Amino acid sequence: MTERDDRPASERRRGGGRRAATPGPRQPAWQRYQRSVAPTRVVSDDELESIHQASLRVLRDTGMDFLHPQALRLWKDAGADVNDQRVRFDPDLIMELIASAPAEFPMLAPDPVHDLMIGGDHVAFTAVASAPNVADRAGGRRSGNQKDFRTLVKLSQQLNMVQSHGGYPVEPIDLHPSIRHLEATRDLLTLSNKAINVYSLGRERNLDGLEMVRIVRGLSNEEVDHHPIVHSVINVSSPLRLDTPMLEGILQYSARNQIIILTPFTLAGAMAPVTIAGAVVQQNAEALAGIAFTQLVRAGAPVLYGGFTSNVDMQSGSPAFGTPEFMQAAMLGGQLARRYRIPYRSSNVCAANGVDAQSGYESVFSLWGAIMGGANLVFHGAGWMEGGLHASPEKMVIDADLLAMVATFLQPLIVDDATMAVEAIAEVGPGGHHFGTEHTRERFRDAFYQPMISDWRNYESWAEAGSPSSLDHAERVVRELLAEYEPPPLGDAVRAELDDYVGRRIAEGGVPTDF
Amino acid sequence: MTERDDRPASERRRGGGRRAATPGPRQPAWQRYQRSVAPTRVVSDDELESIHQASLRVLRDTGMDFLHPQALRLWKDAGADVNDQRVRFDPDLIMELIASAPAEFPMLAPDPVHDLMIGGDHVAFTAVASAPNVADRAGGRRSGNQKDFRTLVKLSQQLNMVQSHGGYPVEPIDLHPSIRHLEATRDLLTLSNKAINVYSLGRERNLDGLEMVRIVRGLSNEEVDHHPIVHSVINVSSPLRLDTPMLEGILQYSARNQIIILTPFTLAGAMAPVTIAGAVVQQNAEALAGIAFTQLVRAGAPVLYGGFTSNVDMQSGSPAFGTPEFMQAAMLGGQLARRYRIPYRSSNVCAANGVDAQSGYESVFSLWGAIMGGANLVFHGAGWMEGGLHASPEKMVIDADLLAMVATFLQPLIVDDATMAVEAIAEVGPGGHHFGTEHTRERFRDAFYQPMISDWRNYESWAEAGSPSSLDHAERVVRELLAEYEPPPLGDAVRAELDDYVGRRIAEGGVPTDF
Repeated sequence: MTERDDRPASERRRGGGRRAATPGPRQPAWQRYQRSVAPTRVVSDDELESIHQASLRVLRDTGMDFLHPQALRLWKDAGADVNDQRVRFDPDLIMELIASAPAEFPMLAPDPVHDLMIGGDHVAFTAVASAPNVADRAGGRRSGNQKDFRTLVKLSQQLNMVQSHGGYPVEPIDLHPSIRHLEATRDLLTLSNKAINVYSLGRERNLDGLEMVRIVRGLSNEEVDHHPIVHSVINVSSPLRLDTPMLEGILQYSARNQIIILTPFTLAGAMAPVTIAGAVVQQNAEALAGIAFTQLVRAGAPVLYGGFTSNVDMQSGSPAFGTPEFMQAAMLGGQLARRYRIPYRSSNVCAANGVDAQSGYESVFSLWGAIMGGANLVFHGAGWMEGGLHASPEKMVIDADLLAMVATFLQPLIVDDATMAVEAIAEVGPGGHHFGTEHTRERFRDAFYQPMISDWRNYESWAEAGSPSSLDHAERVVRELLAEYEPPPLGDAVRAELDDYVGRRIAEGGVPTDF
Repeated sequence: MTERDDRPASERRRGGGRRAATPGPRQPAWQRYQRSVAPTRVVSDDELESIHQASLRVLRDTGMDFLHPQALRLWKDAGADVNDQRVRFDPDLIMELIASAPAEFPMLAPDPVHDLMIGGDHVAFTAVASAPNVADRAGGRRSGNQKDFRTLVKLSQQLNMVQSHGGYPVEPIDLHPSIRHLEATRDLLTLSNKAINVYSLGRERNLDGLEMVRIVRGLSNEEVDHHPIVHSVINVSSPLRLDTPMLEGILQYSARNQIIILTPFTLAGAMAPVTIAGAVVQQNAEALAGIAFTQLVRAGAPVLYGGFTSNVDMQSGSPAFGTPEFMQAAMLGGQLARRYRIPYRSSNVCAANGVDAQSGYESVFSLWGAIMGGANLVFHGAGWMEGGLHASPEKMVIDADLLAMVATFLQPLIVDDATMAVEAIAEVGPGGHHFGTEHTRERFRDAFYQPMISDWRNYESWAEAGSPSSLDHAERVVRELLAEYEPPPLGDAVRAELDDYVGRRIAEGGVPTDF
């Protein structure tokens, strides 16, 4: 696709943009997904109520620190018990506030073809975010940098199962922090046209990110206030503390009706109790207070309940992922989010250092927890390794395959006369086979998901081909996808407006930094 | 443990045997498991009823071939419509017969410490079974043989998550078929003391297997008739045909109250319709007819509903495993088995040729399907590779780790005042940490599952150690477990009785073979 879309952005928005050509490596076409399988309940309704009540007791008796004067003023005005930076909450206040959070909402992408629905039965997947390092087989592990950042953004753009960026797939630390957000966001918006996440890193950066997406999507400021165009992860500094930049993010993004992904980091045995029930009581208290704060800033502002509870490795104290405890916590978090009718975010995470069996099984255990936990947004969906300390392009394509399998599993299993095939069974009869029946021939081509990575050749053919591993296949698919990459269409006028904005802000020195 | 238990087997049975010392590589102690998480429903009750009714229509109108004169006579006497080898069934006859199948039953192991419960909320796991080849990293892939067979039996004995053998983990083809079952079963009973599977390979072999287990467990013939001591997989030759040796197996084992695992091999697009609903309609028809036959042979005989439906690789026509379609079929099969209140068997399977990411993710997808499908017996639980064409010792230990994680996930998530830890959360307060609290210290040691294989070291330590993969760790754990292996206690008298039996049968020439 060499043709570029030169219509003004406001035209393109209505026109629906155009779809990227399907690249060589087979993968499902871009689409939005909905689940047809009910989530799993890991505790009873009574137990869920106990956890809910325990969280409210934590918020009433212990409370939470809010490190932002404006946040403290808002809480005081709302009737909360504010003492220095500590806020204690009447349970009714919390429940009244969270009641206004929407159960489901659209998210606009830079290009309308990639608009998403968040919440309800919808399921969407993001790329890995915020890894400080990157590793691939050819180059080994290295600090994040702009080149690898761009490679991962392009790969995310190519993979149809990556439906949204999660932030920077890897931190481009060779860009000066004062202008990094400008350059990185411009890359995200020009190398890709999928929904993006902006970091809550202080007022100027927050506003820059939102403005740049607004320009590319071609909306007025007023339109932005009614259409979420970015999401931003707000992490609680567990236990029980929301830091200044995080609160600044809520103050600005919720005020503009943008999406907050409120995610406590309640690692059982470290920042939270060692029991899963206890860690989730704390997670829930933190999530409720944060979500309530978004609604205090603006009733009806879109927000997700983020569940990220896992356990520590008892040997090292470092986080473990894709564990049975992670699965239980992910499902319990989902039960709570559904109780509050708030969209739920979970993750596809692993602690593996290499792209081996561990990376495969930990990721699928995570997905099991996330998907059966009812996640509406699977964050870090593709490319996460080493507990988030590095991003991997090879893992990104393997994960895209896993996400496609999960999405296929979530499709309804159609039961009707045609699919039950009683006539075909009668036609074939005992001892025959179904290869050649009309029923098979009509459906064979699209009947099953065809993976990109899984090698299903017989052993002999596989051995003759040099016994390629999943990592070998992934390395090849990365190469193929990048070779086929072309930037998505972006009108010249829009591009110019974006470049003007970035140029002006860089000329102004970006944002002040301490370093 | 050098001490041997020399009590007579009948004593040992009452005495409860003794537990193998826990080997070096950390693993959970032997125990029986029950699920605390409800299975997943992939179709509605109405849709389930449609599938059930469609299966009954298949049995009424198309019927099934039963290649055994005695089976045909029994069906005729029961009022079925028998025409040559084709049997057509009145739906009421099927439903009346299957009603007598027990929902739950015990299975006695050669040593009582390894007795199992099958059905209800119980979940048990077997080793890989019936692979024609074996492969390990050191020796590559080779035909099954007695040496590797013994290695895999020892490894199965060492791994606490392997709760039952599934048959021969690999076929010892260097043993002559006339005596193979005698030698292999003696190995299973002397190198291990876990529950065993016997193959349905004709009358003499069937009786030999049962007799040998009876000797070791120390039961009378009459006791055997009231206590299942073996299970036997009966595969339907899909579509819609039960072959002579399979029917011989049901006739003999069900008559003796032994466990039948009735498993259609309904590969969607090959031996069954290309749609999952259609493949499962056929699976269900075949399973119902086979299960009904066990009850015709002996009302109340223990039987499992085996779900093995998967899809073919559209490129090669060969079976694919651990696919989204496998997951849906496994869960749908479980819904049907629960409708009939019959214990459910599923599998931990993959199509990978090597122990790489694919082997990890396909296995966990299979387990997701099996476990959320409500499987009571996870067959091929540890060591299956390449669509069943080879067994792998390294994969066996990795799978044992996966099974332990699954079993941990299935444990109830305890919600009470102690686990909810509101006081500990208050004690730590905002900004603190939970490492040192009494609540953590009291529980830390056993709070989380500690895997055998997963490498959770930081990247630097891992790289310094040579960047070991899961396969490297598995190879080491295999070595350690085998180094620590000692045969389980077996009384001299029992051993002599077993050897006498085998010696006599070998002297008689074993069983006649055509080859």
